[in-house]
Amino acid sequence: VYHVTWDAVSAERGGYPHFMLKEIHEQPRAVRDTLRGRVSDDLSRVELPELGLQDEDIRAIDRIHIVACGTSWHAGLVGKAAIEAFARIPVNVEIASEYRYSDPIVTDNTLVIAITQSGETADTLAAMREMKKRGVRVVAITNVVGSSAAREADSTIITWAGPEIAVASTKAYTTQLVALYLLAVRFGLSRGTLAEEKAREVLAALDNLPQVVEQVLDTAPQIESFAKRYKDAHDTFFIGRGIDYAVSLEGALKLKEISYIHAEAYAAGELKHGTLALITDGVPVIALAMQPELYEKTLSNIVEVKARGAFVLGLTWVGNEDLEKTVDEVIYLPKTMPLLAPVAAVIPLQLLAYYAAVARGNDVDKPRNLAKSVTVE
Amino acid sequence: VYHVTWDAVSAERGGYPHFMLKEIHEQPRAVRDTLRGRVSDDLSRVELPELGLQDEDIRAIDRIHIVACGTSWHAGLVGKAAIEAFARIPVNVEIASEYRYSDPIVTDNTLVIAITQSGETADTLAAMREMKKRGVRVVAITNVVGSSAAREADSTIITWAGPEIAVASTKAYTTQLVALYLLAVRFGLSRGTLAEEKAREVLAALDNLPQVVEQVLDTAPQIESFAKRYKDAHDTFFIGRGIDYAVSLEGALKLKEISYIHAEAYAAGELKHGTLALITDGVPVIALAMQPELYEKTLSNIVEVKARGAFVLGLTWVGNEDLEKTVDEVIYLPKTMPLLAPVAAVIPLQLLAYYAAVARGNDVDKPRNLAKSVTVE
Repeated sequence: VYHVTWDAVSAERGGYPHFMLKEIHEQPRAVRDTLRGRVSDDLSRVELPELGLQDEDIRAIDRIHIVACGTSWHAGLVGKAAIEAFARIPVNVEIASEYRYSDPIVTDNTLVIAITQSGETADTLAAMREMKKRGVRVVAITNVVGSSAAREADSTIITWAGPEIAVASTKAYTTQLVALYLLAVRFGLSRGTLAEEKAREVLAALDNLPQVVEQVLDTAPQIESFAKRYKDAHDTFFIGRGIDYAVSLEGALKLKEISYIHAEAYAAGELKHGTLALITDGVPVIALAMQPELYEKTLSNIVEVKARGAFVLGLTWVGNEDLEKTVDEVIYLPKTMPLLAPVAAVIPLQLLAYYAAVARGNDVDKPRNLAKSVTVE
Repeated sequence: VYHVTWDAVSAERGGYPHFMLKEIHEQPRAVRDTLRGRVSDDLSRVELPELGLQDEDIRAIDRIHIVACGTSWHAGLVGKAAIEAFARIPVNVEIASEYRYSDPIVTDNTLVIAITQSGETADTLAAMREMKKRGVRVVAITNVVGSSAAREADSTIITWAGPEIAVASTKAYTTQLVALYLLAVRFGLSRGTLAEEKAREVLAALDNLPQVVEQVLDTAPQIESFAKRYKDAHDTFFIGRGIDYAVSLEGALKLKEISYIHAEAYAAGELKHGTLALITDGVPVIALAMQPELYEKTLSNIVEVKARGAFVLGLTWVGNEDLEKTVDEVIYLPKTMPLLAPVAAVIPLQLLAYYAAVARGNDVDKPRNLAKSVTVE
């Protein structure tokens, strides 16, 4: 008998032991593909003809509801920050399964942005349909051309992440962020709330993101070492402020999904209002400090958890050695525009979930109880 | 030597072993006092002269930002549902420590509602000051006459809960809910979005709340028995949809604060997007099913956690025996208007936290790491 050790699946995994790790490493390419053709060569304009909105349509928008589930909902939280900062349109970010039953207040000038990797997420589709019935314009951000979301939305922005096989979403999230940044810049330019010079700065930073992501992947060995040491933790907390909090939510979800460690994210300033009671000797806390403007405030929250004995792994930008004085271990990430930092900061958290799950012997690509696309309500 | 066994503290506790239990049991009185004089005798109008707003001011409001921390933030989530339902004003509920740094989009017609039991919560005060500087009108909901929040707000609605001594807030929360319901009805009547007949119905239901709360307290022995059996759980999840989810957040926070069990709340429809991975054999799940309109959807989520082996304690309204077919144990709560159900539903959760903490031998009134008023940032 002659055994063929090569098989189609491992070939698809491109030499990686799991789809998730392959997909994490595909992010420089995925981000680049999602940007391709959408930023003008002189880095001054966003080209999104598929949006189907003219400047006057964009100027008329009075509010935006971003509707999504799970990881896509976390991307929406960062999208809100970007759109509010650049375009000064009030944005609500809503959980689709909540939104559809909440009788949301919309006007003729409300825009719904629905985010779904598969384009088949049942609650998100139901929310889209409900809003379309009410005459609200719906833009979908999805990874699947020809999906239900893509077909049913008034217009669609495709994230070019490529097929995502692992249940835990990684490259879909980072490319959703890119799509949202592009929308935010486009809206800001159309509404005159984003100065052209600032827009160029943002677009140049976006253009540079694939290289940033590439560099961040170099932190893998450090993360793997941490994950091996802390794999038996029962509880972990992720803390941050502003969009660092949004990334914390995503980091905690990843860890839950595949390592089954009870991870929870907290807005760092909220710890004192209760959760601090759970911080005791040796509890690992992942602290995101990627926003220079919020650094001092975040640091004071880190000091609080250190005082209760937490083991703190800090994430900050290269050059901010100050953090070493307070935390136990620091992951340095290449500097980018603070608003774009989530694209960099999420990657060590994806890797942490991955290596913790591997160290615990879990089935990384197919975690217990979960399906890739949630096509039931 | 003659020992005096009576002391001032136990007298203040009115015979209860802890302030928290005393304060839980004071809720019928606290709710009644917060309603007193604020509902017209014929149950047709809300009397809130201290609000200082005329009908035309209320009609001019284009959006509301509710700003708070911790338990008060959870009350705000219910307030949003009530205000949007009755007055159709878009409401954002913001964590104060996040809001103040987020450069929020406000207009001349934005109203900020700041909620703080002590009236001294540092982040909430800072957010109030920032908004006042921007010319935004601020209404404070606070339990302390003469507090900083009461002095600095443009107008103040006092919750008449009386002094709250236990660190874990109970009666402050339920009276904050009452204040928010009153505001929602007042706004709805002024804007003509709430029919007079419906307003009468709501006000009659509010008027009846003290009796409802009284009856809910009768569930204490059942809760105590459950708490004793599950005191050694390491993880617990609270699930619900809509305002049941808002109450779940508060229930989880209570349990964390004083029992130190890692409790987490999830919008029931979001479980499938990750957290379901943490549900295994015997994990206790507290499922809130207090909203008839959402009952079937919530039930399907309960079935999902049961299928993974969870031990489910369900909360539902008297008469809904259907839930017994699916869950392990049911707490029946007296029927009230679904939008007011949080006032009833939170009480078993407060009792659960209390009895779990007592069973674990914790210092109930002074949990580790926490202070009563968070006067630092």
